[in-house]
Amino acid sequence: MKLWDKGFETDKNVEAFTVGKDYLLDMKLVPYDCKASIAHAEALCEKNLLSESEKSSLVSALKEIIALHKEGKFRINASDEDCHTAIENYLVKKCGDAGKKIHLGRSRNDQVMAALRLYEKEELSKIIKLVSLWKETAKKKSSEWSSIEMPGYTHMQRAMPSTAGTWIGSFAESAEDNLFLLNAALKLIDKNPLGSAAGFGVPVFDINGKTTASKLGFSSWFKNPLQVQLSRGKYESVIAEALSQVMFDINKFATDVVLFSTKEFGFVNLCDKLTTGSSIMPQKKNPDVAELLRAKYHAVIGEQFKIKSMTANLMSGYNRDLQLTKEPVMNMFDAASESVDAAILLLNGITINENACKQAMSPGIYATEEAYKLVKNGVPFRDAYKIVAEKFS
Amino acid sequence: MKLWDKGFETDKNVEAFTVGKDYLLDMKLVPYDCKASIAHAEALCEKNLLSESEKSSLVSALKEIIALHKEGKFRINASDEDCHTAIENYLVKKCGDAGKKIHLGRSRNDQVMAALRLYEKEELSKIIKLVSLWKETAKKKSSEWSSIEMPGYTHMQRAMPSTAGTWIGSFAESAEDNLFLLNAALKLIDKNPLGSAAGFGVPVFDINGKTTASKLGFSSWFKNPLQVQLSRGKYESVIAEALSQVMFDINKFATDVVLFSTKEFGFVNLCDKLTTGSSIMPQKKNPDVAELLRAKYHAVIGEQFKIKSMTANLMSGYNRDLQLTKEPVMNMFDAASESVDAAILLLNGITINENACKQAMSPGIYATEEAYKLVKNGVPFRDAYKIVAEKFS
Amino acid sequence: MKLWDKGFETDKNVEAFTVGKDYLLDMKLVPYDCKASIAHAEALCEKNLLSESEKSSLVSALKEIIALHKEGKFRINASDEDCHTAIENYLVKKCGDAGKKIHLGRSRNDQVMAALRLYEKEELSKIIKLVSLWKETAKKKSSEWSSIEMPGYTHMQRAMPSTAGTWIGSFAESAEDNLFLLNAALKLIDKNPLGSAAGFGVPVFDINGKTTASKLGFSSWFKNPLQVQLSRGKYESVIAEALSQVMFDINKFATDVVLFSTKEFGFVNLCDKLTTGSSIMPQKKNPDVAELLRAKYHAVIGEQFKIKSMTANLMSGYNRDLQLTKEPVMNMFDAASESVDAAILLLNGITINENACKQAMSPGIYATEEAYKLVKNGVPFRDAYKIVAEKFS
Amino acid sequence: MKLWDKGFETDKNVEAFTVGKDYLLDMKLVPYDCKASIAHAEALCEKNLLSESEKSSLVSALKEIIALHKEGKFRINASDEDCHTAIENYLVKKCGDAGKKIHLGRSRNDQVMAALRLYEKEELSKIIKLVSLWKETAKKKSSEWSSIEMPGYTHMQRAMPSTAGTWIGSFAESAEDNLFLLNAALKLIDKNPLGSAAGFGVPVFDINGKTTASKLGFSSWFKNPLQVQLSRGKYESVIAEALSQVMFDINKFATDVVLFSTKEFGFVNLCDKLTTGSSIMPQKKNPDVAELLRAKYHAVIGEQFKIKSMTANLMSGYNRDLQLTKEPVMNMFDAASESVDAAILLLNGITINENACKQAMSPGIYATEEAYKLVKNGVPFRDAYKIVAEKFS
Repeated sequence: MKLWDKGFETDKNVEAFTVGKDYLLDMKLVPYDCKASIAHAEALCEKNLLSESEKSSLVSALKEIIALHKEGKFRINASDEDCHTAIENYLVKKCGDAGKKIHLGRSRNDQVMAALRLYEKEELSKIIKLVSLWKETAKKKSSEWSSIEMPGYTHMQRAMPSTAGTWIGSFAESAEDNLFLLNAALKLIDKNPLGSAAGFGVPVFDINGKTTASKLGFSSWFKNPLQVQLSRGKYESVIAEALSQVMFDINKFATDVVLFSTKEFGFVNLCDKLTTGSSIMPQKKNPDVAELLRAKYHAVIGEQFKIKSMTANLMSGYNRDLQLTKEPVMNMFDAASESVDAAILLLNGITINENACKQAMSPGIYATEEAYKLVKNGVPFRDAYKIVAEKFS
Repeated sequence: MKLWDKGFETDKNVEAFTVGKDYLLDMKLVPYDCKASIAHAEALCEKNLLSESEKSSLVSALKEIIALHKEGKFRINASDEDCHTAIENYLVKKCGDAGKKIHLGRSRNDQVMAALRLYEKEELSKIIKLVSLWKETAKKKSSEWSSIEMPGYTHMQRAMPSTAGTWIGSFAESAEDNLFLLNAALKLIDKNPLGSAAGFGVPVFDINGKTTASKLGFSSWFKNPLQVQLSRGKYESVIAEALSQVMFDINKFATDVVLFSTKEFGFVNLCDKLTTGSSIMPQKKNPDVAELLRAKYHAVIGEQFKIKSMTANLMSGYNRDLQLTKEPVMNMFDAASESVDAAILLLNGITINENACKQAMSPGIYATEEAYKLVKNGVPFRDAYKIVAEKFS
Repeated sequence: MKLWDKGFETDKNVEAFTVGKDYLLDMKLVPYDCKASIAHAEALCEKNLLSESEKSSLVSALKEIIALHKEGKFRINASDEDCHTAIENYLVKKCGDAGKKIHLGRSRNDQVMAALRLYEKEELSKIIKLVSLWKETAKKKSSEWSSIEMPGYTHMQRAMPSTAGTWIGSFAESAEDNLFLLNAALKLIDKNPLGSAAGFGVPVFDINGKTTASKLGFSSWFKNPLQVQLSRGKYESVIAEALSQVMFDINKFATDVVLFSTKEFGFVNLCDKLTTGSSIMPQKKNPDVAELLRAKYHAVIGEQFKIKSMTANLMSGYNRDLQLTKEPVMNMFDAASESVDAAILLLNGITINENACKQAMSPGIYATEEAYKLVKNGVPFRDAYKIVAEKFS
Repeated sequence: MKLWDKGFETDKNVEAFTVGKDYLLDMKLVPYDCKASIAHAEALCEKNLLSESEKSSLVSALKEIIALHKEGKFRINASDEDCHTAIENYLVKKCGDAGKKIHLGRSRNDQVMAALRLYEKEELSKIIKLVSLWKETAKKKSSEWSSIEMPGYTHMQRAMPSTAGTWIGSFAESAEDNLFLLNAALKLIDKNPLGSAAGFGVPVFDINGKTTASKLGFSSWFKNPLQVQLSRGKYESVIAEALSQVMFDINKFATDVVLFSTKEFGFVNLCDKLTTGSSIMPQKKNPDVAELLRAKYHAVIGEQFKIKSMTANLMSGYNRDLQLTKEPVMNMFDAASESVDAAILLLNGITINENACKQAMSPGIYATEEAYKLVKNGVPFRDAYKIVAEKFS
């Protein structure tokens, strides 16, 4: 039964279309919705809108759901629409009238947002840990490989002397930037949406974002209730940007690994466990992990584009379109965590072929140095450049 | 067991990452892969590379799989990687040596492409039927509503007299364009990829695209085997474009319906079965179907962007990145069919509020007509325009 | 002076913002707008809404503008807003009352669309010629290089024996597909928008799309005037898709050239005229043309997504947002023509390094062939695969 | 003459293609490049690589260029490629051998980056000021309109009572978020790229990012020279995200204004100076400014996606593709500043039609309040909801 059930039957096709994948996606939100509902129940009780025993009954039922969900035993049916309804239905069944009181002072709009933002905060924290691990791994490799010479490339042409340590070290340094962006996103979204109801606040009762903010671990709350709706899509796009920056570095690392593990470059060896074979060519060892890492970046920016395009040209206040931003956000978090995981695996699974790197240090690579030595002897740089250029033409 | 199994164990995380969702997505490809394998087995038999009895054994096993799949009883395990491996493993188990011979003269690359293109052809045909139905429905409504006056809008401002019939008729006419594009996509992709193997043809044996083209219902085949790989992503983006055009019209129709069903416009009434309620506001009837239809367009163009971005900057020949274009294609077909379905439902569920439309025909709407009447009396248009403009300033 | 001047002054900043780059971009549309205006004047005359002498006066003034424009002497001032106004102002000045009559039976909406579609048809025809030339060039090279052995790659790993002819031939074949798509786009957009006025037809007078279609070389016209507005963005996105397919092939060709001209691959030599140097490294010869060709694809798909995103979630009928689709269309045509030009130049400027190609034909490349020979001797393929795989492990 | 001139003539078409619009776009970078060159010259002097008099001569020539540029008298020819070459050529001509020495210890790569990042910092600072002004304007209006009742909408349906002050106040609050993001972007990019040369540092001489960081006002510098190249596109996309968030709010504000200024809603009046007319319909006053603001958002996200797509799948180190990210960045900054400007103009040019707002406060809007009053009397919320819902069904 839906929260807004009005006695007429919905068309089955309409129901399937409007519910979409929500009843599946929402499995991820169940514990967050329960946490938010516990805080909301406590607040209602403090304001004497729930009795102590009603509150206790609701809180223990909500904890029950969290436990069931952990064991994979909590189900959301398509006819429930979403996790929020499934949970309220459970509460009504379990706690009677108390269940019918839990929705006082909130709307599904702010309820969804609260669960979503709690989920996003948790996922951001997870990815921050993963990116830190990636950074440490790259840093370690950078110092391990600091004396392995390798050509530096510009335009895919050998350019100047460099090292394998400098190469992998650039990703370690860049991970700092990504951590800065992930933390900025985390800080931005750390506002309590609960209490904004449908975007216009809670009438009659004195309930707003402040009521539950600290209970839910939010460091602040939305002063203007309509801004909560305005923030949907906005915050998600900022998260997307931070994730896409993480993916961008992995894309470049993966591109390098695929290239460096070709027979022609041969700078990098992949351990067997990281390669796959061909169904027709018995000799092949393919760098599929690296190729898929390269591709995943594009899947993430596609999701970001969906969010940015879908939420535009819509009037202020909630529009159902916003619902379809949920799947992109979840897709991106999943893609990012599995990709950072796999990138660390990949980095740990490669070795540098020092010989191949050395052989690639062809004379041209030292041309700038040569010109600079002429400069030391008093030749203006642009003239020194021309003298050396002639040698290589 | 993988087709390319080489005796060393793959890392479980690596396996999970590389297989991704393929073992789920591929459920859609099972019947197409079986059909392609039947054609391939027949061809091998004609070339004496399979005996009659081997062929018969393979063909009946493949038909078995099709039947099992129809009943939802064919499973692809994550350890199988994809449907192609699951099917070959089934054949080896069932037909012994014949099963080990089926992969002769093909690679998983052309096998995947054959199944995919057969699937795409079928899906395009389905969507063509749906769009035709949408067109017919819009046409019927257009003639039903041909005499219901309604303001024509530019810049969202009342502009000139029009009718509800003209409004909905524009979608009927535009559907013709969409059908043209869908048919063009269908024609473009109607080439047999089988026989191109890994992109460089089949050595030793005389097998190419021609061998199985007519058996598979393809009207032509790829002359250059490498072009098969080049076509991946290209053809999918062309399909995406046609589908996004279908979705664009639905986006506009849905945008109009949401607007026209506001209290302020009130031109359109939605039947109850097409609306949903609010969890907090008892009075609400929301046009969720229309809002979701509006949003789905953006989900589709996001998928199109993924395909276009993911396949670029890659060297010629197969790259594993291409695998990740499969999900976007399936997502788009699913989104498009359910959306056209829902759009027809929506169109059939609205009625025009003739009174509201009539009341909106305010005097300004006839200003151009007025100016034209002055022109009839000899006033140059630009002067007539100014005379009438003064009245409304 | 604007066409809709109402006597109050517009804010200068507002004017600058709303006019934007139109007065610059519209320089490209001047001749097309004149052609459309000539057809419109003739039609008005046939319907006795202009006298013979008025028509002649207008037609010769319009031809004057075309000639001035050719010599770079026709100016559009920012205060004119766009070319359409600049032209009407010129006509009023030159032909007096006849100039004030030219706008009868049309709106700037259909006038813009007519000029734009004529421009797009011309540009499509140009690009079709260029792509044909590209195809012929690739075909010629394909036969020239048909016996130069080169490894075929999958996953960027050497896979099977192939030739330089097969490589470049794949682009020749694919160009056929691109020509099919360009021609389909041309066919789709070949409908006369003039006569639809502001999207709701011409009142009082008997003027519609049929009136000027054949005069303007359109093979058909829009039956539903509102569809003209619906087609804006739609048709432009279809054009964009065809152009992006052309660019996609160039992107892949360029990616290959950059890779093949590395020291490590060395399959391709670039003639000096196609390379640029470095400001610091005297030895460098960089494949900038190829790199920029690779990048331009992304600029084009960015423009395509502007069009697709910008035109969505808008109600039926003209919205000023549509104006901003003009620049992306022009950007894409410019990028595509200069890129096909440069791609042909690049293809003519490379030579194949046969030796390097030959040396890259390492033994593994023949593994499939080897397995197939075992098959010829009766070993089932999957077993033969395993026997050969062992050799290379 | 190019910096890397090697004595052979470049093909004119190749030159035109590779230079592209750089010689135009770079006009914006001239003063920044001069500032960076002054700092670089001072550093070379401190390290005794330039004499005092050589430095003085260079510095005064660079100041000359800045002055010339201010007066619009500094020209970059297409044959100069870009501003960096034009400036070096000027210095050689003016300062002789000193001019030939200025490029010691840097590459065009880090030189471009330094100028670009200085430009971006300045532009970010400008936009931060504009957004602050927008915020203040919205805040002021929010308090002015705080007691004007207006329906709050969800699903574009009247939902709950709200005020015009809450509506516009949501943008003021959201501007805080945008300022946070702009400042985060500013902080992220505030690192000196100069000293990284071509991405692999400066050989022979002791020059790195630290050398010029404080002279240029950068608060830190890149420790890993290769990261400078990795940051290109990354930082620009982060800037793009912040700008697109600014544009998103404006998109929503503009969408509301267009809707609210329809005859049907009528909540908002636009002053005449903000509207434009129609060429055919004398009565029209169109909200073009708002429509164009709505559209510009999409132009900005299109540029963002160019950057994100174009820079992917490229190996580490400089690739010429990166050059094509310059135009998108400049386009976005221009679009954002003119849009914030116009949005402030628009906000100052609207008045609220209090009567129309009041009339739209239909009874349904108070349904939640009504239900809550039942709750006060002891009815559980979900039951109260049903009682009230019946009244409105």
